Amino acid sequence: MEPYTSRLMKCYQNLESNGFDHLVVTSPYNLKYLLGANIDTGERMTVLLLSPSKKTKLIIHQMFSDQVPKSNELEVIYYSDEVEPIKILAAHFSGHENLGIDQNWLCSFLIDLLKTLPAIRVEKSTIVEKLREIKDEKEIDTLRQSARIADAVMYQILQLQHFPTTEREVAATIKSFFAEHGVNELSFKPIIGFGGNSANPHHTISDHISQFNQPILIDMGGVFHDYCSDITRTFYLGRKNQQFEDLYQIIREAQEQAIELVKPGVAFSEIDLFIRKSFAKWGYDQYFIHRTGHGIGLELHEGPSIHRNNHDVIQSGMAFSIEPGLYLPNQYGIRIEDIVVVTENGCEILNKCSKEVQYLELLGV
Amino acid sequence: MEPYTSRLMKCYQNLESNGFDHLVVTSPYNLKYLLGANIDTGERMTVLLLSPSKKTKLIIHQMFSDQVPKSNELEVIYYSDEVEPIKILAAHFSGHENLGIDQNWLCSFLIDLLKTLPAIRVEKSTIVEKLREIKDEKEIDTLRQSARIADAVMYQILQLQHFPTTEREVAATIKSFFAEHGVNELSFKPIIGFGGNSANPHHTISDHISQFNQPILIDMGGVFHDYCSDITRTFYLGRKNQQFEDLYQIIREAQEQAIELVKPGVAFSEIDLFIRKSFAKWGYDQYFIHRTGHGIGLELHEGPSIHRNNHDVIQSGMAFSIEPGLYLPNQYGIRIEDIVVVTENGCEILNKCSKEVQYLELLGV
Repeated sequence: MEPYTSRLMKCYQNLESNGFDHLVVTSPYNLKYLLGANIDTGERMTVLLLSPSKKTKLIIHQMFSDQVPKSNELEVIYYSDEVEPIKILAAHFSGHENLGIDQNWLCSFLIDLLKTLPAIRVEKSTIVEKLREIKDEKEIDTLRQSARIADAVMYQILQLQHFPTTEREVAATIKSFFAEHGVNELSFKPIIGFGGNSANPHHTISDHISQFNQPILIDMGGVFHDYCSDITRTFYLGRKNQQFEDLYQIIREAQEQAIELVKPGVAFSEIDLFIRKSFAKWGYDQYFIHRTGHGIGLELHEGPSIHRNNHDVIQSGMAFSIEPGLYLPNQYGIRIEDIVVVTENGCEILNKCSKEVQYLELLGV
Repeated sequence: MEPYTSRLMKCYQNLESNGFDHLVVTSPYNLKYLLGANIDTGERMTVLLLSPSKKTKLIIHQMFSDQVPKSNELEVIYYSDEVEPIKILAAHFSGHENLGIDQNWLCSFLIDLLKTLPAIRVEKSTIVEKLREIKDEKEIDTLRQSARIADAVMYQILQLQHFPTTEREVAATIKSFFAEHGVNELSFKPIIGFGGNSANPHHTISDHISQFNQPILIDMGGVFHDYCSDITRTFYLGRKNQQFEDLYQIIREAQEQAIELVKPGVAFSEIDLFIRKSFAKWGYDQYFIHRTGHGIGLELHEGPSIHRNNHDVIQSGMAFSIEPGLYLPNQYGIRIEDIVVVTENGCEILNKCSKEVQYLELLGV
């Protein structure tokens, strides 16, 4: 069944070039990508095994049979509490093969496997992750719809007559707005930074109370039909503030110009370094303390990484964030984030939410 | 600083008996237990290293310096994006030691370590997990308060004049009630089973609409001062139903009698088998399809496991759930769950919420 059969075929095609005899797939996101099923068995071992015979096997605890997709192309091997699942996996190997293994597998399983087959060779695999970086039309359309819902929620927040008093209340309001659009799962806990809290890119929501004349940073996203959204806007609660506005425009200009550079063949490092240079012109580059962006899809953070050390080049079909920010210590931070999808000649910006400077004049405060 | 110094000392004392030269602690829960700090660095490597020198070292990315506790007993080694953290860890070993490693470490780190030091020997460690199974007075008191909040929320649900229409709304109501008690984090997504959905112990909330004359299973918990609660009650929405009541009493009797057996020295398997035998008397044992219970503390599911294959014995200070249930296929399920803490001669039941059969007569339905 498409697109899953094609995706599995591509994995098989990549086995040899990666030097693997078998591929051990364990990440729930990789399983969803290859099988189209939500499989999450917690601490119990689940392995999708791709072997030279090209007969794909799923080893899974019998308790989770309702999560297993119906497919003639998949051989399902159930195990019970009475057996050690690693023995079932090990029985597929002679003991001297090269295995490619998903990076997130728990090391307890790997330790058990190495005890059972001491001469087996193990390598980290990125085969499935690399395939996931290039989205097909259906994935792009789902990401587009997911982004539109995030845009709509951001507008709803802006239009509130009475702005919530605390960061926690803003987060709860965001959750309820996403639910109004049928999105019941957020892609991450919203980052809501009132005033000085916006200067910490990793700030988690607190009971901090909003005050007049300070910025508000909102970074949020939902999961629509398995695909994540992620958008950041920074507003100003209060009257016109020229310092905020000047800083805001520096970031906005860098973000928009960086997006114009995005097209196939350009190195990720170029995008990141362009932002750094833009900020350096103002003497602000030391206040940009994270990478420019990250891939997005089934996972909020996936490949590619838009980082100055990543010299790979952009390819058509990739989806990632462009999210520069400046964080003035003990003052505040501003970040602007959109998701883009790479086209043949450039990119499409999925988020349509305005990037004009916006002042919130709130009755409730 | 106590109790963290004592806990670290106990780990060092257990190194030798476990045959480890070093202990590699990586689980955020183990780090919280040993350091008293919330350390979560996502995909970036964090290792607390316990070595024969008894000088405890924390290897962590510099971006997370604000998560590191201040302590003279801890040597902190920061790394940046420019280095491979596994090299920093490997530099502490000659290459032929036995390492005890937390089970949840990502295998990508272990693969890197084995490439750097091919002759190092690795074993799964449960040293910290075993210490965590025995709670001290302060932990027990926190679990007690956590359970009382869960009890209060369960009462609030029962007292609703208008019972929510869908499972999802019940879950949202539970979240808001916990928040009223200052508990902003749930220990898991509530399991709400209306009617037939209650027959699946792993049922996740849906938009299923409540109907008159069916059971409602509610399994929920919060995190109070880092310690989890977990309680299940099953009610009946509608008029008296003798079949439900008969089944309910079988489960209640088994649950209450099993709790009476809990005391130091009794094997966990005995508790589980007692429940199975109680159900077998009624010919229902095939409908009890999970273990009797699980340890609880910083994590919702931790040691010990109350399972028929676990022949270890109960010890004073342990905290775990007793949660038998019967699940009639295509009909409904009933589960009753309390948390108990083992005392010198028996156990204290932390949950006080009534276990009488309760019928909900709701205006709103």
